Amino acid sequence: MTAFEAPEPSPLRDPLGQFVELGRDTPIRLDCGVDLGPITVGFQTYGRLNADHSNAILICHALTGDQYLADPHPLTGKPGWWSDLVGPGRLFDTDRYFLICSNVLGGCMGTTGPKEINPATGKPWGKDFPVITIGDMVQVQARLMDHLGIGQLFCVVGGSMGGMQVLEWCAAYPERVFSAIPIATAARHSAQNIAFNEVGRQAIIADPDWKNGDYLEHGTAPDRGLAVARMAAHITYLSEPALHRKFGRNLQGDRNGFSYGFGAEFQVESYLRYQGSTFVDRFDANSYLYITRAMDYFDLAAEHDGQLSKAFTGTKTRVCVVSFSSDWLFPTCESRDVVRALNAVAANVSFVEVQSDKGHDAFLLDEPEFHATLTGFLEAAASHRGLPLLGRG
Amino acid sequence: MTAFEAPEPSPLRDPLGQFVELGRDTPIRLDCGVDLGPITVGFQTYGRLNADHSNAILICHALTGDQYLADPHPLTGKPGWWSDLVGPGRLFDTDRYFLICSNVLGGCMGTTGPKEINPATGKPWGKDFPVITIGDMVQVQARLMDHLGIGQLFCVVGGSMGGMQVLEWCAAYPERVFSAIPIATAARHSAQNIAFNEVGRQAIIADPDWKNGDYLEHGTAPDRGLAVARMAAHITYLSEPALHRKFGRNLQGDRNGFSYGFGAEFQVESYLRYQGSTFVDRFDANSYLYITRAMDYFDLAAEHDGQLSKAFTGTKTRVCVVSFSSDWLFPTCESRDVVRALNAVAANVSFVEVQSDKGHDAFLLDEPEFHATLTGFLEAAASHRGLPLLGRG
Repeated sequence: MTAFEAPEPSPLRDPLGQFVELGRDTPIRLDCGVDLGPITVGFQTYGRLNADHSNAILICHALTGDQYLADPHPLTGKPGWWSDLVGPGRLFDTDRYFLICSNVLGGCMGTTGPKEINPATGKPWGKDFPVITIGDMVQVQARLMDHLGIGQLFCVVGGSMGGMQVLEWCAAYPERVFSAIPIATAARHSAQNIAFNEVGRQAIIADPDWKNGDYLEHGTAPDRGLAVARMAAHITYLSEPALHRKFGRNLQGDRNGFSYGFGAEFQVESYLRYQGSTFVDRFDANSYLYITRAMDYFDLAAEHDGQLSKAFTGTKTRVCVVSFSSDWLFPTCESRDVVRALNAVAANVSFVEVQSDKGHDAFLLDEPEFHATLTGFLEAAASHRGLPLLGRG
Repeated sequence: MTAFEAPEPSPLRDPLGQFVELGRDTPIRLDCGVDLGPITVGFQTYGRLNADHSNAILICHALTGDQYLADPHPLTGKPGWWSDLVGPGRLFDTDRYFLICSNVLGGCMGTTGPKEINPATGKPWGKDFPVITIGDMVQVQARLMDHLGIGQLFCVVGGSMGGMQVLEWCAAYPERVFSAIPIATAARHSAQNIAFNEVGRQAIIADPDWKNGDYLEHGTAPDRGLAVARMAAHITYLSEPALHRKFGRNLQGDRNGFSYGFGAEFQVESYLRYQGSTFVDRFDANSYLYITRAMDYFDLAAEHDGQLSKAFTGTKTRVCVVSFSSDWLFPTCESRDVVRALNAVAANVSFVEVQSDKGHDAFLLDEPEFHATLTGFLEAAASHRGLPLLGRG
């Protein structure tokens, strides 16, 4: 079912589940009109579901993230992408909450996607995989919650594309979301972001090893194209000040002067090349095409007569919107649009623009103000939800 | 010498020159230490040089520009890149000034560069062409001025990489520059800009048709890589508001809904693909590598003990620095650094940040405030230089 070995169990990981088959009886009706099923969903959980199933938090990953939130990544061995925030007494307190993180539909870490086998042909889906949307991803997550016996999530959290999923949850399943934290995200993908995604897609498609999407059958991999896509995207995850602070115009190694060549002369070049070359070891090029397309399609207002507030009519969900001051991929003004729409329907919404020079990636980094914001919001929401407070030693 | 036909003469073009051989007796000593010569320089002129040779304006082109400032482009047939500004009674008044625009060293429109023949081998230079700098480009331009009998330029003007050349002229040949207009530029290339250039270079190098730089010999062309490079760069030339205003999330053609595929679904995708596909018809991939590298190397302060003001010590040049408010490739703060350095040596400097939402490309577009700034500065400088005022009908 998956090409990789299951990860070594970590002390945090609950033995429950990892891969589940959903939709055998009732396929998933995708936005494009295709019925897809059965599908496999890869997911990880942390902590324990309480007796009345009221302590579940769904954490939605970003474009190149996965379900290994707090486990070592099975392919790279690196710590999970939010592992510092997960554990007893931590922000996502595993003594208090039951955390679920699932690989998105179209992904490449075990959930059904273009690299998995199409049962109709016995070959990898490749570009025959149906085009998916953020709504489709969330529909699959809702099926997973059904499977886990979770009627209402205590909270749905996510940054970037994960934040799009959070907003989609609030709009599509308002009664199933007690609280929500959309981070560094937007209710629609901007023209500039579509443009950057298109550059990445064209870099992949331009690689002859892409083989019209059927590279798995041909035993090739469009690694060069995927690396270029990752390099271009990676620049957008950082801020100019962060790049300047981190690298400036520093040269590689101990060089005193220029080498007058096309090797990685500047440290920033070497860093980018490394980002590109390591990414291809853990990500599938077709998944990159499908998931970026899903982001491009996302426009919550368009699905509600062009009025974003209509997406949230009557919502009782408590929402905490978070942006970062130096994020130019999902700038604060786009978070403000979400806040304005929620205010227009008298929703319970708070908003924090975290001052940071780390750009979009700040949601994955050590940002004390950001973490304090999440902690405060979760504490208050837990108190309103009647989740027992814990004595902290 | 060049692969293309000479353009049809335009009414504006002076019959003087087009291509000249320089450095036959004294080669150009490049910053990398290589002696290069003889070299060919392609250039266009407009207007007439006056009796005391005091009315010459050198116009420096940007990364993908060329000498066809006000002529139809010989390969695309499109009007010259500043053709609206050149002519009798226009901003660059051909009744008053003698305009010169030359293709940069390393370029691909007739000036010696990687696509021209290496006399030592009889084959195209390819990646055996020496790595060049902005300083080298300006040195070649100075040789061209010697050839034309121009001791002091009345003005040196240019945007983006053209602006880097303007600053280099001010630093390297202060006595030869009466006035200067660096536009939408910086005294050093930022880490973020190096990163974007590196993405473009890697896209070209990743294309198997690049053939380790020897594609001309192999009869191939890394068009796919070059197109991706152009697409990525093109995003940086625009502003997010400009992209939003121009395209937003509009779909291609008359579509009412998504097609759920990977064709050019959004107008912004189609626009970018067009920019990529047309660029390869007029530009050489190796030139793109060499010229972006020259930009990356540019750091005027580093050449002067790390103090930018030292680059301008004792200057008598009148300088007008221009930036655009929505330019995020060469943001206003980088122009301010130049102004501050000029102020530190009590130079005659004025500074205008033009309010515009058109991004970096604003210097190529119809921006009345920008044009008024240039006109005013040139009028005052001409008056100080004692160039005769013209009666305007």
